[in-house]
Amino acid sequence: MDAKKYAILAFGGVGSRFGWSKPKQFYPIKGEKTILEYLVEKFLSFSIFDEIVVLSPPTYIEETSKVLSKLNCEPHKVHILAGGDTREHSVWNGISFLKNRAKEDDIVLIHDGARPLVSKEIIIRNIELCNIYGSVVTAISSTDTVSYSENGLKIGEIVERSKIYMHQTPQTFRFGIIYSAMESNIEKLHVFSDDASIVLASGYEVYYAKGHRLNLKVTTMEDLDILKYIVDKGGDLSES
Amino acid sequence: MDAKKYAILAFGGVGSRFGWSKPKQFYPIKGEKTILEYLVEKFLSFSIFDEIVVLSPPTYIEETSKVLSKLNCEPHKVHILAGGDTREHSVWNGISFLKNRAKEDDIVLIHDGARPLVSKEIIIRNIELCNIYGSVVTAISSTDTVSYSENGLKIGEIVERSKIYMHQTPQTFRFGIIYSAMESNIEKLHVFSDDASIVLASGYEVYYAKGHRLNLKVTTMEDLDILKYIVDKGGDLSES
Repeated sequence: MDAKKYAILAFGGVGSRFGWSKPKQFYPIKGEKTILEYLVEKFLSFSIFDEIVVLSPPTYIEETSKVLSKLNCEPHKVHILAGGDTREHSVWNGISFLKNRAKEDDIVLIHDGARPLVSKEIIIRNIELCNIYGSVVTAISSTDTVSYSENGLKIGEIVERSKIYMHQTPQTFRFGIIYSAMESNIEKLHVFSDDASIVLASGYEVYYAKGHRLNLKVTTMEDLDILKYIVDKGGDLSES
Repeated sequence: MDAKKYAILAFGGVGSRFGWSKPKQFYPIKGEKTILEYLVEKFLSFSIFDEIVVLSPPTYIEETSKVLSKLNCEPHKVHILAGGDTREHSVWNGISFLKNRAKEDDIVLIHDGARPLVSKEIIIRNIELCNIYGSVVTAISSTDTVSYSENGLKIGEIVERSKIYMHQTPQTFRFGIIYSAMESNIEKLHVFSDDASIVLASGYEVYYAKGHRLNLKVTTMEDLDILKYIVDKGGDLSES
């Protein structure tokens, strides 16, 4: 039997940099449709995942439930859980929840709620590579010249740009790998800036899946404006 | 007397990746206004530069002249020159042209024609830092986790993202520095991907000026759509 596929959508942060009264997932991105509804609906429409875990700030669980109750999906397909203090603590809440459901070889795809433009192509690529390698990070390399600086004041050295990768999400793992990597780093989850870094620190190899320059993370209102514009135009990240 | 200030605007490439019949600078970005007209007009409006050198593909000199003849500026303020085979050969054509005009301590700001959103703040920051340090590159650091990979297949190691800088333009130099750096690398200009790399390779220190995530380089039609949208909204890169 095929491995089951789970998605974890991390809407954990309250987005202090965003400059709006609520967390950014409650901002409308398509007519009245919020980022939260837009992204969960998109994930359901892919018909790829057996179950979807949505992480919400603890004080917004009720509002998250209300938004998602509009979606027409099978019962027990979408779970809403409280996130933790950091991004990785939130993801750990999702991974722990799956402990009694997922087998070692099942696949868990973890995605930032703040990247609503992710395409089906990127998700399929993640899953295919995860089937082969077990650990996958979506990444893009820089189109600009890249340099390294120890002090941030002046160039230390030029770095070959084709060897530098900027991580996006999704990041996708066999359940057994992400569970054991996170569990063995449980005391220091706060020092990691993404899931791939934790898995790498635990000695696993992590393979790249090609991302997209416009698979943007919404941080500011300016980003959101651009995202809304792309969504209005059809929301597609065309691949070249 | 203050150092004179020159701008070199590099519209050298024919943009084969852009998928349009002409080089991208002839694409309308604001009503009927092309990127070329929009950017040169913006540079004139800053009232910062004594002279502006516009580099054009050799076969588009006439069309460039025609577009720029619409602008209301003093005679001999804007010069149109033919670009070369690579970006750095184009810039060298501009630098050589200035040889009989500029003094060693004059300031030359070099900017990609494909980054029409550049703000006055970024340009002023470049010039102020160039006055102090002599060599300046506009750059931003990554907001995402960054990794290094030798083979592009899997993560080699995680790199501290605050130490990795992605170069943009403008890049700004004392005339004496950029002239001597380019002249001494004249046989291998094609190996460099930007001006700062040449100056660094010649033993000078190059200092960072803070860029902006949306000081984008237009490469694809998709980029252009986003740029047009930002220009329609006022064209400002707000700084946070």
